[in-house]
Amino acid sequence: MKLIKKVNILIVGLGLLGGSYAKGLKKMGFEVSAITKDKESIDYALKQNIIDLGTTEIDAEIIGKADLVIFALYPHIFTEWIKNNQQYFKSGAILTDVTGVKGNIVYKIQDILREDVEFIAAHPMAGKEVSGVENSDDAIFKGANYIVVPTEKNTPEAIELCKNLGELLGFKQVVELSVSEHDEMIAFLSQLTHCIAVSLMCCNDNEGLEKYTGDSFRDLTRIARINDEMWSELFLSNKEALLNEMDKFKKSFDEMYDIIKNDNRDALRGMMKTSTIRREGFDKK
Amino acid sequence: MKLIKKVNILIVGLGLLGGSYAKGLKKMGFEVSAITKDKESIDYALKQNIIDLGTTEIDAEIIGKADLVIFALYPHIFTEWIKNNQQYFKSGAILTDVTGVKGNIVYKIQDILREDVEFIAAHPMAGKEVSGVENSDDAIFKGANYIVVPTEKNTPEAIELCKNLGELLGFKQVVELSVSEHDEMIAFLSQLTHCIAVSLMCCNDNEGLEKYTGDSFRDLTRIARINDEMWSELFLSNKEALLNEMDKFKKSFDEMYDIIKNDNRDALRGMMKTSTIRREGFDKK
Repeated sequence: MKLIKKVNILIVGLGLLGGSYAKGLKKMGFEVSAITKDKESIDYALKQNIIDLGTTEIDAEIIGKADLVIFALYPHIFTEWIKNNQQYFKSGAILTDVTGVKGNIVYKIQDILREDVEFIAAHPMAGKEVSGVENSDDAIFKGANYIVVPTEKNTPEAIELCKNLGELLGFKQVVELSVSEHDEMIAFLSQLTHCIAVSLMCCNDNEGLEKYTGDSFRDLTRIARINDEMWSELFLSNKEALLNEMDKFKKSFDEMYDIIKNDNRDALRGMMKTSTIRREGFDKK
Repeated sequence: MKLIKKVNILIVGLGLLGGSYAKGLKKMGFEVSAITKDKESIDYALKQNIIDLGTTEIDAEIIGKADLVIFALYPHIFTEWIKNNQQYFKSGAILTDVTGVKGNIVYKIQDILREDVEFIAAHPMAGKEVSGVENSDDAIFKGANYIVVPTEKNTPEAIELCKNLGELLGFKQVVELSVSEHDEMIAFLSQLTHCIAVSLMCCNDNEGLEKYTGDSFRDLTRIARINDEMWSELFLSNKEALLNEMDKFKKSFDEMYDIIKNDNRDALRGMMKTSTIRREGFDKK
């Protein structure tokens, strides 16, 4: 299968990400349908011409004609959905997803999936602090990374198709990672940072501090506005890798604490020099 | 004394902040001189017309004609400077500063200062990741807070003058805090955030992670590019308050760690809900 215009695409879960996929794909001329639980989301998406067809039901006909199915659901709902409805897939259909953790999902889905259908996992590293199809916007893909996460069960054709999808949607970079590489990277770059932001926001009631707040505190806590249902599931689905990264951070923070406590100026400057050099590496892009 | 155009202003320490003060004040028509240790900074400032007069020497004449002296030095140099050169001040001169910590500085200066000269402490909460007069820019004051930190030794006139200075420079907000209120606020909002950013940058060598980094990690580590000489001094000068805030953060982060370890989804969502509500308060401005 190639991603040409006559490919029929079904999006399951029409929230911020599902909606943004729909917008981008519809603009390019694909036929896009959607299944999601809220009637309002379907009504909105039809009215805004983001999708061609939509329903809140498990519609055998809509599912059966999809060549490519994109799942934008919470992890546990995703697994359940496959268990309950995979009989409706067209033979040869390709499934992909947007789930932010992989180890806990990919093998499970691939194990239970019909032999004549293939699931190739992907993680679009894009988002917003707000949710819902009303906030969807395919511009969020522009500067972002799209990670394809194949296993040994995947065919080169499906991997290629999944990469094409990321390129078509306008991601800045499309890369391939193994399941464990992906989950480790996500634990550090994304989940640990959210843990820190939430902890920082929780450690002080901030009464009256708003009026003194400068950019530093605002930058560190921007992501502390968080979808608790989704992120708690992502954290717990990637628990082992996340705790490992939290341990590393705790060690580093404790080291700084002791250094300050002991008035060890040289060691303090040493940590600051390391952080300055490393951070510069993130500026050169 | 009122801040009218014929007030002669001396800036001691012509770096990023001193230079930004000079730029703003010179534009308004004040006569601005500067004393700083680097010849290059003076040459640059004269050439760019940021100052009227400048020297790397302790020039009794320049110091003696200043009505208002603004100190933009590292804390320990500031105290030494006063000890060694206060005999040159004009009687009735007002001194102020830009130092980021107060408890360790203000009382020390006020204790040793001549009776006929007054020091009123201030903290302009503005900056950049780069230093030096070449990077100075009075636009950094526009959205920022200017904190006046009086003690019982200060007169209402000097406090008023200091506030006028902040207003003239274009700060968004000019507020008054006690020394301990200031240091506690700074420990939490500014120093703790820098501790976290530096620790995060130090806890992982990030090899190859640059290409996957999204906005979250970038936001949390922007301030990890840090002037180690200045910030190590600021941290250690405010050690007690800073360790106290670090303790609060550690407690909160440890709580999240245990919650994740114990798969306590409800408690995890509870922390996320708290952080979301609190962070919203920082958006409404």
